[in-house]
Amino acid sequence: MSVESIRAAAERIKPFIRKTPMLRLSHCAGAELPQEFHLKLECLQVSGSFKIRGAVNRVKTLAPEQLANGLVAASGGNHGLATAYMARQSGVSATIFLPTNASPIKEQKLRKWGADVRYSGSVWDEAHEAAQAFAKDCGAFYMHPFADDAIVSGQGTVAVEMLEQVPDVDLYIVAIGGGGLITGMSQIIKATNPKARIIGVEPVGSPTLHASFAAGKVVRLPQITTRVATMACGRTDESIYEIARQHVDDIVLIEDEDMQRAAELLWLEFGIAADLSGAASLAALMSGAVKAQKGERIAGLVCGAGVDGLGA
Amino acid sequence: MSVESIRAAAERIKPFIRKTPMLRLSHCAGAELPQEFHLKLECLQVSGSFKIRGAVNRVKTLAPEQLANGLVAASGGNHGLATAYMARQSGVSATIFLPTNASPIKEQKLRKWGADVRYSGSVWDEAHEAAQAFAKDCGAFYMHPFADDAIVSGQGTVAVEMLEQVPDVDLYIVAIGGGGLITGMSQIIKATNPKARIIGVEPVGSPTLHASFAAGKVVRLPQITTRVATMACGRTDESIYEIARQHVDDIVLIEDEDMQRAAELLWLEFGIAADLSGAASLAALMSGAVKAQKGERIAGLVCGAGVDGLGA
Repeated sequence: MSVESIRAAAERIKPFIRKTPMLRLSHCAGAELPQEFHLKLECLQVSGSFKIRGAVNRVKTLAPEQLANGLVAASGGNHGLATAYMARQSGVSATIFLPTNASPIKEQKLRKWGADVRYSGSVWDEAHEAAQAFAKDCGAFYMHPFADDAIVSGQGTVAVEMLEQVPDVDLYIVAIGGGGLITGMSQIIKATNPKARIIGVEPVGSPTLHASFAAGKVVRLPQITTRVATMACGRTDESIYEIARQHVDDIVLIEDEDMQRAAELLWLEFGIAADLSGAASLAALMSGAVKAQKGERIAGLVCGAGVDGLGA
Repeated sequence: MSVESIRAAAERIKPFIRKTPMLRLSHCAGAELPQEFHLKLECLQVSGSFKIRGAVNRVKTLAPEQLANGLVAASGGNHGLATAYMARQSGVSATIFLPTNASPIKEQKLRKWGADVRYSGSVWDEAHEAAQAFAKDCGAFYMHPFADDAIVSGQGTVAVEMLEQVPDVDLYIVAIGGGGLITGMSQIIKATNPKARIIGVEPVGSPTLHASFAAGKVVRLPQITTRVATMACGRTDESIYEIARQHVDDIVLIEDEDMQRAAELLWLEFGIAADLSGAASLAALMSGAVKAQKGERIAGLVCGAGVDGLGA
């Protein structure tokens, strides 16, 4: 993955995605927000989240024979939806493995798009193993959500748009699941605006990169206790770790309840139906985990669509 | 109301509202949509709908003594929320009269913002009479949702932004409740882009302006059967009728179910949590009530926020 591969991905996927708006969170009566806080509304994106970016970039660079036996993914929800969407568009089958903590609403959407949905394991890592084995068995293509340059380059394209839409941002706050989004984004952000700080946000109950940073190497978490399926990951990939080490300035931890409160505020005050990971940027600010400096221009993104901000 | 009063309102309210984005509805797999269809996302507006525009313009032009005893409104939901929001911002009380068909979710929001909520009558017109009487009794200011130039000029400001954001629109499709929105919008649209067509959308169960157009004068509907409270109105105002006559090219009728289907599509494919009136522009196209010409650029607006598009 490189700045060039992200720029190439941005061109490649352009015809297949929406340029989602950025909204400045102003006039909020329910909480004290930083003066300039902009959210990229990827909840309005094709398939309901930024994950479509990586999925399009991956599928459009597959040879026909790689695609022929269908697509398989393991996902807390959004990556699975993106995969199911691309399978439908490509006329092939999609088999999506979900951990049991995935949102039932996302399952409904997956089925509506014709995906074969299977539950396996209580966390993503277990669904991932089952999905990999299944893909091998039936010769389908396994869409890894982060340990794949084409996927991560695709996710990084969201920052290409953000840099154009709101320039001179001082601080980016980005939710972390496996780490594909923040590494893709940080690569292009640091190349374009080296002074910008990038802070990652993980749930207290799934501190994947935080624990790896502390250990100085990739570690496997002994347990995962967050209920936010899209931010639950027991172990990240070496390549993700290396890029994050280089470009991510800090990683903070927040409680699931912080995200719940932020999602409720996004809904009540802004009409944004975010999933809980989509509320993570705001939650990091509201909880005090990230302290904004006066006058800083801050940006985050609403990763995915939820259920009126009060669901999952 | 005039082009000048709308332009003045746009300047006056600017510090108090959000400039909401317009989203082009592309990449929709669930329905055939016109090639160029743009929606102004007023569901992301302060207070959850465009109604805040009129409410700000009204309150900011009141004398302190007019405001002192609080604000009163009768509303299917969105105008009440805007009034409650402005009362809270102004440090005065809000009393909101709802017809019994109003959405419980909107009632919850109203209470959260400190409004005194009262139910009166089964349709808006009855709530309106009770609210007027109450306001007179206690010396509070009655915020009429449409028979008030300051309110209608405020609502018209949404078109000022739309004209800037997406120029050269051929066709605007606008939901009608009492008619305040479409008359405000059409005034400024026809002054700026006289060739644009403007089509109003009413529910089959509340054809207020449609029936008045047919009769050649303002009529009172014998009954209202729509369940879309924000589009239910038994009788519009003479001044609204006159402006609509002059500037609105046509009015079409759609079923409540058309709006339900459109709201579900907005949610599933676009992550937009619209209330049913917010889905009316799209519903008019999907149902065939409005037929788009090939190559036409079409614009509509999502009037208000709903409950993940599957609620009310």
